[in-house]
Amino acid sequence: MVVVGIIAEYNPFHNGHLYQLEETRKLFPRAVFVVVMSGNFLERGEPACVDKWTRANEALHCGVDLVVELPVAFCVQPADRFATGAVLLLKKLGVQKLIFGAEHASYNFKKLAQQVSDVRGDSVKYNESFAAAYQRAVEKKVGHAIDQPNDLLGLAYAKANLQLGDFLELIPIQRKGAFHHDLCLEKDHSLASASAIRARLAKGSIKEIAAYVPQITSVDFATRKLITWADFWPLLRYRLLTAPYEELRNLYDVTEGLEYRMKQQVQKLPLEADFEDWLGAVKSKRYTYTHLSRLAVIVLLQVTEEEVKSVSKNPYLRLLGFTPKGQKFLHKLKKRADIPLITKASQKLRKKFLSVDYRAGLVYELACMRVQDHGKAPLRITAPSLSRKKR
Amino acid sequence: MVVVGIIAEYNPFHNGHLYQLEETRKLFPRAVFVVVMSGNFLERGEPACVDKWTRANEALHCGVDLVVELPVAFCVQPADRFATGAVLLLKKLGVQKLIFGAEHASYNFKKLAQQVSDVRGDSVKYNESFAAAYQRAVEKKVGHAIDQPNDLLGLAYAKANLQLGDFLELIPIQRKGAFHHDLCLEKDHSLASASAIRARLAKGSIKEIAAYVPQITSVDFATRKLITWADFWPLLRYRLLTAPYEELRNLYDVTEGLEYRMKQQVQKLPLEADFEDWLGAVKSKRYTYTHLSRLAVIVLLQVTEEEVKSVSKNPYLRLLGFTPKGQKFLHKLKKRADIPLITKASQKLRKKFLSVDYRAGLVYELACMRVQDHGKAPLRITAPSLSRKKR
Repeated sequence: MVVVGIIAEYNPFHNGHLYQLEETRKLFPRAVFVVVMSGNFLERGEPACVDKWTRANEALHCGVDLVVELPVAFCVQPADRFATGAVLLLKKLGVQKLIFGAEHASYNFKKLAQQVSDVRGDSVKYNESFAAAYQRAVEKKVGHAIDQPNDLLGLAYAKANLQLGDFLELIPIQRKGAFHHDLCLEKDHSLASASAIRARLAKGSIKEIAAYVPQITSVDFATRKLITWADFWPLLRYRLLTAPYEELRNLYDVTEGLEYRMKQQVQKLPLEADFEDWLGAVKSKRYTYTHLSRLAVIVLLQVTEEEVKSVSKNPYLRLLGFTPKGQKFLHKLKKRADIPLITKASQKLRKKFLSVDYRAGLVYELACMRVQDHGKAPLRITAPSLSRKKR
Repeated sequence: MVVVGIIAEYNPFHNGHLYQLEETRKLFPRAVFVVVMSGNFLERGEPACVDKWTRANEALHCGVDLVVELPVAFCVQPADRFATGAVLLLKKLGVQKLIFGAEHASYNFKKLAQQVSDVRGDSVKYNESFAAAYQRAVEKKVGHAIDQPNDLLGLAYAKANLQLGDFLELIPIQRKGAFHHDLCLEKDHSLASASAIRARLAKGSIKEIAAYVPQITSVDFATRKLITWADFWPLLRYRLLTAPYEELRNLYDVTEGLEYRMKQQVQKLPLEADFEDWLGAVKSKRYTYTHLSRLAVIVLLQVTEEEVKSVSKNPYLRLLGFTPKGQKFLHKLKKRADIPLITKASQKLRKKFLSVDYRAGLVYELACMRVQDHGKAPLRITAPSLSRKKR
């Protein structure tokens, strides 16, 4: 059985994701499609626009056979660690082929990864970000810039694959229509970036996005609240105002005196300030907005150094949902998996494996008002409907 | 100069408080009236209905000459410790006479205090509250029950006075019209309890309370948001959901495994639950609602054992405001005071003395949207107006 893997956030699930699935399905018509998906907090340091169950359900109705949650500890991370965590889960799932979107699908990602395998991009200059140092080092090695977000993620997957025994065939798919950073919906066709769709949703324009997402996503947005940082800003602000420095310092990746900077800036803000005002106040040449947004999630969820290490040492596969085809695959997987396959967040599992994920769910619930983990079983989609809206 | 002291919360300042001031002014027409007032969080474990500056301003316009803030660490405490902190400040202020309302003004509070000076009421039974054990022990000693809230507070003041050298003349004033627990406004006259007034305000009936408060209080409520536990419940809930047990255990008075009870109950609540639902879930025979509400404030503000000890060891007088008469008194006080007289919450003072009070202000601001401490100077009332509304 061919097992095709995808690493995704689906924030939200849109026509570009559907296009990727349809194109790949043509290449591997009998394969099982397995997705490792971020949960309720994402790689760029932001809450998901709708909860993980809603997004998993959309994916399962649009061609995915099995959705596994990427643990928060792997997810709210820079590209290289995000990729390492996700590719590790793909290996444990027995995935053979990794499909990913790229701005330059013509790149030979495996070869590039070999060229930059020793590039770590540790920045010694204090006025330069890790990301900038990394891209500069990569350019020096390969002879040209790699600076588009999906190309960089693809390279990170390829590097993680090399580290984990080169078990994957890498299949880049040319991104069409909308680049990730584009903020405008393109009126001519049916593709728009996730951020363009979210921006339009934030203005309350559900009708306008209908052409760019499958029908199931449209329906979900009509019945669910759009979650943004604004929902969690009062909680983050409260935590920063009241936390002693030593409790902040104990959190993952709070280094170089960031506990002082984060707390002092929040104290200086006017009472009507929002999350973006705080980010702007904390920003420096050393830290990108994304880096600081991730730190904000770490503080919000109180993720410690120790907890991140624990997930890396004891990874697990948390199932969010499957189709009948996915279920058949699962039966086989159960016999050979060498890490836990988790279907329910029982009290025992919450202590050993899911402590951060469970806590993230409890915080996310405060905004989305839907139970995230307690007593939740994986989704079982009996009749997936490829519900793409006609163009 | 006669210095008359009052210990108050003024939550809100109403006609009963005005009556107390007017009656006492008749007894001591030339005295300076000094009030030690709770700040933004109160003895019964709740946020003040309007901020401390607003309440101090009302008092200064209605006959008080000087308002000093009772530190949060003394304030969110059972009656005996609340009284000890407040009476200590009265001593440092040079107060000679303490006026207090009592349900039984005929009691000889000094004599009662001598009779019960060794009664501590430590409850050894785990199904009995501290308050119940104390009242039982008092009744045994004095031969009759003392169970009305203001009588009990009066007794606590009298005990603290004995401990601190018996420097006060105790002057109980018979409470008129409305007992503290009465929840109905009494239509026949102009007196109603603070809780009755708050209950009516919570229903949005500003007009209905006009007869029971001075005009200045009416005007304040017309222009300010009424603050209740509902404003802080999302923050408390978030903190309980995310705090590790060891961080909760480090907080003041979190003993006997209460960290488990508080956290586990918050996890079990439905998403739409409110503060009262949580209190009800945590309640047991061992803990009164008031005890648990105070703990909730301790958790909300992250007050540690160490911080409470530090305030007891290094007390201070934080000035909230004064009239010209109060200012004259202050000039003399400055020369003889043996603890700091604080007019501004400077960064240096915030570290040494005001850490908890400043943090309490930062949290309260999130609800009331008015700066509480940063850069604030004491109120200077040049022309106090006894602005009681005509009956």
